[in-house]
Amino acid sequence: MTPPESPRLRRSQSAEDSAARRVRRQLQLQQSLDDLLRHKSFRDISVTEVAAGAGISHSSVYTYYGDRDAKTEILRDAMDARFAALMARVDLRFGRMENFEEYIGRLLDDIIGFWEESGGLLGAAMATSFEAKNAEPEWWAGHMAPWEDALCEAVEEARFADLLPKDAGPARPLVQMILGMVFKRCHDVLTAPHTDEDRSELRELLQIAVLRILGKAC
Amino acid sequence: MTPPESPRLRRSQSAEDSAARRVRRQLQLQQSLDDLLRHKSFRDISVTEVAAGAGISHSSVYTYYGDRDAKTEILRDAMDARFAALMARVDLRFGRMENFEEYIGRLLDDIIGFWEESGGLLGAAMATSFEAKNAEPEWWAGHMAPWEDALCEAVEEARFADLLPKDAGPARPLVQMILGMVFKRCHDVLTAPHTDEDRSELRELLQIAVLRILGKAC
Repeated sequence: MTPPESPRLRRSQSAEDSAARRVRRQLQLQQSLDDLLRHKSFRDISVTEVAAGAGISHSSVYTYYGDRDAKTEILRDAMDARFAALMARVDLRFGRMENFEEYIGRLLDDIIGFWEESGGLLGAAMATSFEAKNAEPEWWAGHMAPWEDALCEAVEEARFADLLPKDAGPARPLVQMILGMVFKRCHDVLTAPHTDEDRSELRELLQIAVLRILGKAC
Repeated sequence: MTPPESPRLRRSQSAEDSAARRVRRQLQLQQSLDDLLRHKSFRDISVTEVAAGAGISHSSVYTYYGDRDAKTEILRDAMDARFAALMARVDLRFGRMENFEEYIGRLLDDIIGFWEESGGLLGAAMATSFEAKNAEPEWWAGHMAPWEDALCEAVEEARFADLLPKDAGPARPLVQMILGMVFKRCHDVLTAPHTDEDRSELRELLQIAVLRILGKAC
C-alpha cells in the first residue's frame, strides 16, 4: 500500500504533467502543419485543419499558441525545432582535413537533405520572409546567421591559405548572396516532384556556382 | 437639339462605358494594393482595405474579381500590367554594339529599377511563388520565361563569339539559378530601406556574380 501523497507533491506532479502535455501538443500541432504542407499551401491551411491533424479542437489550439497568428507561431516553432536538430548534426566549420570544395559540398549535402526532409515548412518560412516589410523576420534571420558567420569565416581562412583568390571582394555580401541563391534554387528544384538525378545535378551546379562566385575557376 | 438616340446605339455606348468603368476600377484596385503593400504584408491586407483605397465597397470588388481569391487576382493583374510596361521599354537581346558585361549591367539596371518601382508587388508575388506546391504559379513562370530565354540565347551567342568560356556548363540551368539569385538578392536589399550606395553595391556585386557563374574571371 502506497502512502497518501502530500498535497505539495500532488501539485508539483500535476504541473509537470501539464508542462509535458503542453510540449506534446505543440509537437503534434507542428507535425500536423508539416503533414498538411506536403499537399497544400500555407495560406490555404486553416487552424482548424492543423488542430484536426493533431487530434484536438480548434479552440484548444489557443491554449498552446496565441490567438493573433497561431499558424505562423506553429510554423516558427516547427522551424526552430528542425533547425535545432540540423545544427546538432552539422559541423559548419571549415575543417583542416578537407579542401574547400569538399567543405562546400558537405554543406550543400546538409542543406539539400534538410530541404528533402522539411521542404514544406522551409517554403512556407521563406514565403513569410518574402512577405515581410523592411527585413526578414528575426526568427528566420536568426537561423541564417550561424550559416552566414561560418561561411564568412571559412572564406577568410581559405583565402589566407591561398585556397581561394584574395581579391574576389568582401566575404560577407558574397556569402549572403550565395546563401540566398542556394535556398532559392533548392526551393525551385526540390519543392516540385524530382528525381535523384535532378538532385545530383542541383548539387553539382550549386557547388560550381558557389566556388565561382568566390572567384575560384572551375 | 440632338436627335433621340436609337436603342441600339444607346445599348452599345452603355456597354462601352461599362467596359471602361470596369478597366478603371480594376486599375484603381491594383493601385490601392500597390499602395498598401508599401507599408503592410500581403497576408495582412484585407480585401476591404483594397476596396477602400480604390473608393469602392468591399462587395463591389467581386463585380471585378472572383470571390474565391480576389486579392491574389488583383496582385496577378497588377504584376501583369507592370511586367507589360517593363517589357515595352527593355531590350532583352544581346546587342552587337555592346560587350557582354555591358549587356548584363543593362539588364541588372532594368531589374533593379523595376524592384525600386514595384518592390511591394514583386515581394508579394515571390512569396506566392514560394508558397505554391509543385511549381511556381503559371503567371509568375510566364513572366520569367522571356528573361530566361533571352539570357540563354545571349549566353550561347557570347560563347560562340568567345566572350564567355564555352565549357562552363549548360546555359539554361545556370541562367535559371542566376535569375533566382538576382531576384532574391534584389528583394533582400531593396525591400528594406536602403541608400543609393546600397543600390550601387548591389548592382556591382550582382554583375560580378553573374559573370563569374558563367565562367568569366572578374
